Amino acid sequence: MSDLIADLPKGPLTPFRETATFDWKALKVHLEGEESIKFKNEVYAVLSRDPIFARDFSRPSTDEYREINHKRWKAVLEHQFIDDFFAELERTQDLLEILETYDQGLSGRYALHANVFFSAILTIGTERHAEILEKTRNNEIVGCFCLTEVSHGSNTAEIGTLATFDKGEFVFTTPHDGAIKCWAGNLAQSATHAVVFARLIVGGKDHGPHAFALQVRDPNNYRSLPGITIGDMGTKPGVWDGVENGWMSFSNHRAPLWTLLNKGCDVTESGEYKSAYSSSRERQSVSLGSLSAGRIGANACRLAATIAIRYSCARHQFGEKPGSDNERAVITYPLQRHRLFPILAQAYVIRLYQSKLMNHFREYMMRMVGGEKSPELAELSKEVHGLSSCTKPLATWMGVAALGEARTCCGGHGFLQSSRLNNLRDDFDPSQTFEGENNVLLQQTSNWLVAKKAAGGDLKSPMGTTDFLVDGGALVDGPVVRRVLGAYTWLVHHLIAKTEMRHKELKAQGKSSFDVKNESQIYTAHTLSIAYGERVMLSWAQAFVDDAPIAFKSVLQRLVNIFALDRIEKHLSTLYIGGFCSGGSFGEWVRNTLIDEETLLAPDAISLVDVIAPPDFVLNSALGSSDGRAYEHLMAEFRRHTDKRTPFWGDLATFLHHKQQSKL
Amino acid sequence: MSDLIADLPKGPLTPFRETATFDWKALKVHLEGEESIKFKNEVYAVLSRDPIFARDFSRPSTDEYREINHKRWKAVLEHQFIDDFFAELERTQDLLEILETYDQGLSGRYALHANVFFSAILTIGTERHAEILEKTRNNEIVGCFCLTEVSHGSNTAEIGTLATFDKGEFVFTTPHDGAIKCWAGNLAQSATHAVVFARLIVGGKDHGPHAFALQVRDPNNYRSLPGITIGDMGTKPGVWDGVENGWMSFSNHRAPLWTLLNKGCDVTESGEYKSAYSSSRERQSVSLGSLSAGRIGANACRLAATIAIRYSCARHQFGEKPGSDNERAVITYPLQRHRLFPILAQAYVIRLYQSKLMNHFREYMMRMVGGEKSPELAELSKEVHGLSSCTKPLATWMGVAALGEARTCCGGHGFLQSSRLNNLRDDFDPSQTFEGENNVLLQQTSNWLVAKKAAGGDLKSPMGTTDFLVDGGALVDGPVVRRVLGAYTWLVHHLIAKTEMRHKELKAQGKSSFDVKNESQIYTAHTLSIAYGERVMLSWAQAFVDDAPIAFKSVLQRLVNIFALDRIEKHLSTLYIGGFCSGGSFGEWVRNTLIDEETLLAPDAISLVDVIAPPDFVLNSALGSSDGRAYEHLMAEFRRHTDKRTPFWGDLATFLHHKQQSKL
Repeated sequence: MSDLIADLPKGPLTPFRETATFDWKALKVHLEGEESIKFKNEVYAVLSRDPIFARDFSRPSTDEYREINHKRWKAVLEHQFIDDFFAELERTQDLLEILETYDQGLSGRYALHANVFFSAILTIGTERHAEILEKTRNNEIVGCFCLTEVSHGSNTAEIGTLATFDKGEFVFTTPHDGAIKCWAGNLAQSATHAVVFARLIVGGKDHGPHAFALQVRDPNNYRSLPGITIGDMGTKPGVWDGVENGWMSFSNHRAPLWTLLNKGCDVTESGEYKSAYSSSRERQSVSLGSLSAGRIGANACRLAATIAIRYSCARHQFGEKPGSDNERAVITYPLQRHRLFPILAQAYVIRLYQSKLMNHFREYMMRMVGGEKSPELAELSKEVHGLSSCTKPLATWMGVAALGEARTCCGGHGFLQSSRLNNLRDDFDPSQTFEGENNVLLQQTSNWLVAKKAAGGDLKSPMGTTDFLVDGGALVDGPVVRRVLGAYTWLVHHLIAKTEMRHKELKAQGKSSFDVKNESQIYTAHTLSIAYGERVMLSWAQAFVDDAPIAFKSVLQRLVNIFALDRIEKHLSTLYIGGFCSGGSFGEWVRNTLIDEETLLAPDAISLVDVIAPPDFVLNSALGSSDGRAYEHLMAEFRRHTDKRTPFWGDLATFLHHKQQSKL
Repeated sequence: MSDLIADLPKGPLTPFRETATFDWKALKVHLEGEESIKFKNEVYAVLSRDPIFARDFSRPSTDEYREINHKRWKAVLEHQFIDDFFAELERTQDLLEILETYDQGLSGRYALHANVFFSAILTIGTERHAEILEKTRNNEIVGCFCLTEVSHGSNTAEIGTLATFDKGEFVFTTPHDGAIKCWAGNLAQSATHAVVFARLIVGGKDHGPHAFALQVRDPNNYRSLPGITIGDMGTKPGVWDGVENGWMSFSNHRAPLWTLLNKGCDVTESGEYKSAYSSSRERQSVSLGSLSAGRIGANACRLAATIAIRYSCARHQFGEKPGSDNERAVITYPLQRHRLFPILAQAYVIRLYQSKLMNHFREYMMRMVGGEKSPELAELSKEVHGLSSCTKPLATWMGVAALGEARTCCGGHGFLQSSRLNNLRDDFDPSQTFEGENNVLLQQTSNWLVAKKAAGGDLKSPMGTTDFLVDGGALVDGPVVRRVLGAYTWLVHHLIAKTEMRHKELKAQGKSSFDVKNESQIYTAHTLSIAYGERVMLSWAQAFVDDAPIAFKSVLQRLVNIFALDRIEKHLSTLYIGGFCSGGSFGEWVRNTLIDEETLLAPDAISLVDVIAPPDFVLNSALGSSDGRAYEHLMAEFRRHTDKRTPFWGDLATFLHHKQQSKL
């Protein structure tokens, strides 16, 4: 095991490690698997030795950042960690996880081409796109993805870019500024090609949005092609400043016929349009983004927990008696544990959930690609869509909240660039709106659940995530998770019924179906999606614990208990209002048990962090270093800026002197 | 009125303005007063004409930022908006509000010297410090404030810097790295002087922390004085990168006797220490920070509401029927209103509350400075301290949450630097931990409330904020605010009782008083402080509405109702668990009424924003511009970055070409 996982340095964290009730290395192997750990060790070893990946706590300018990302991207390709992005799915996930925790600017640069651009062409292109796929795989071109426009993000059905068939070619135009493509990473400076969504106009008829694989730049001089204008969107917070989010407008740009990504549709040389299942195309692109979201949310919670819990062991403040020797580590305070241990629990639960979701999704994709067309697969399609549509909001909201909480848990020092916490929050913040605005996405889930109930048939589902609806849900006794799952079951039923009632009410008032949906979200359909998603996360995490070896069951159960209690606590008002419970006992039980479990988790907290923490050079945080020597790392950074007279000192000195003189 | 307040530009926001049920200019005058508006107009006019205050959406480097702040600071002084910081308290608040909304890096630069450094010497210095005060007032020196150390922020009683009396002087030493002073704004590059807190050691005896007014640099060459090392803390997010947060360590630095800020204490030439009320010194410095917090929180909510609500009127997405002409402004969606209107309400309520708090505080300070020593003043002291200790957490948490929510309400574009929302969240984030860590501060409030109840005597208080405790609080009928105040009264009683019961329980277990406090925070004492603070905010805001002219009563009442319902909604679980209510009706009433009030506020929302919005050049947001032409402003920024070939284009082109070649 020591070969596989390095020992941790001795130091201030040692006493906190010695109280662990389990073997942290063994748990890490159980959670990640030897193959994954070996692969990640290799990647870490290569990255840590390559000087291009060395960094300090300074912030580069936009130009510097983009150049560094470019060089690091080339290095990632040249190190050839992965041969085939799609054949080695698990190793790809490992690599993306590493790159994302290292720097999302780099993972973005890498994945937007190798994953997003590539799989768009793979899934909605045909044989005639084999060559461009090959060039993509071989990094002979750089791709990006252009769907979003200035005035359309969520409602992609109304994008405005036009692709008009004319004499055997497509002519691309941007009819007004609102139709300008934007938010395309890689576009502003590096992309030679783009998957571009535009309304296909053939013979005067608008066939709606279709995708095209266009060349946008001449790779020899990096100028955009005739009729194409490309630019940058300006500075952005955090590592996103290193991502080239570009905009693009078209002015009679002509492209060949083959550029149409023609799975299930086509336009002939003579200008005849053949129809397709256009809606399924969009459904797949939503799933792609949602799949990343679980990993993103888990990483955010993981980074937050690692930095803040380690620092909370190092930071001592206040004590029973005066004297700094009597001060206690802030991790010993119940309130600090209450703020941080649920984050640690989320890091584990979201990750376990994400693994299982990926397995299901892989199965699903194989069946889709295989051409299956069964009713069960259609049901599975809806379930995948419904589940991923609430996963993404839950995971990203939890992740961003975790980083914000972790920052303030670390006091003032938590704000420094050298802590990385505020920066990380900036880095993860866009995940709440990219790949689908969270609140809009949640509607997909509730729509599906309500329709499923209304359809009257089988309440079960292919992945089993709605099987719980067969029961009514009730206030039960038993272990923590059993009680909480019972509450969730009741809650989901209650919210489906409430949504249906609200729909009835609004229809009776003559509202359109559009308004019926919009006016039944708050505390109702919106909460329904959240409750369903949390229940699935909890139930999948519990299944993992049920299958875990005895050596880890206790500590993993405690984490899952904390997740369960922390999440259901936020629904107590609805549970009380709806009549699931009344009087103090259920609510007090939830709150008191949560505090008790947090107390009981304390001896294991640091070791649970050690299991999931990235290596120090990836974490890049003075406060979160595995040696626990936070003040030393802080002071090392402070001392890099010793006695630096400011460039404007002379001007200031003159000003003060002048003020003195003017008094006389 | 048109002379006083400029008209708003016609454009996309005009239809949203035409639905207002009140005269926005008249409300602005009522809220701010003509004198304040005139003063602010003058300041705005000067700032908008002075090129040093012009800015675009780019982000300067750390050095550039500090230099710009330096130049702007000089300009603010040279424009002489204020003659005397403390004589013109209301105009000072106006100026700070403008500078803070413009750029907290600039307001920090200004206030740390003119306010923090100056008032520290004013309040704990004596006649012998008249000269240094004069120099401060006249800007012949630059001051900063050094209390926090690397290992002590909240527990200032344990700071480690030593000031040892030796032969008629004080010798300053830093015994270990944890005692290094840090987080002192202005220190890193500009300060010539500092108020430094150090343990006073006289004849081998440690008299605890005392304050000293030290010179730290030679103003002629800007080198630190012998025995003093100064440095910078490294890069920080947002505008704080423009604030010179410095660190300082001492190595046998000798300073004269007069540097001791000797109000109520002293050390003679021969080394005799005379005692003082050292604890009152600290109490005053907490109040100072808390006073800024209300203004800071109000500004954060104000900026969030202005940008997000204006943009939500400009942004159209989805509609009943297909076609982009049928898409609706996102402000028309109930969920969007539910996310944003409480923020607008908070902007108003916190501001009204802050005004009243400042008035009370001014009275209090006059009585303290006048030397009064009555029991009533002692009670007032406790009340001021208790109230400001929960104000600061509430206002800053609301402010930061508001900016985070506003950012995601604006979708992807909300993340751009040109939106300013994420940057503003970074800018306001530290307010949650500077001038007192929020959760530590809240303990002061609950300690006071519990002690007051336990003392048995008069439950009323000099400012009247605890007078409500004379009633028990109950589920009542009547107007919204009356019902919500009744719930808060019950809640505060309940939480005091719960805290007392928890204390009893823990004492019976033999816990120390330190542990008793720590183990009675979660869902108990912590929530008590929050409930009390929210109740005071609500009740003071309601008093303002009660006194308002008929023309504004309705719209102001609606805002206060939304504030009340939004805040009490978050306490529903506790109200149900504790037995204040049972069954659906109270909870449903809170939630449904909140949604109804949000619907009813909609016609007035944009005009309520116009009342509080800063001028466009101060707001500096493409999305929040008063002309509502968000896409035009975005595109103008995007077009500034058109067709910029990246510096590394040649390297990338070569790389791609090589990949192509290597295949052959």
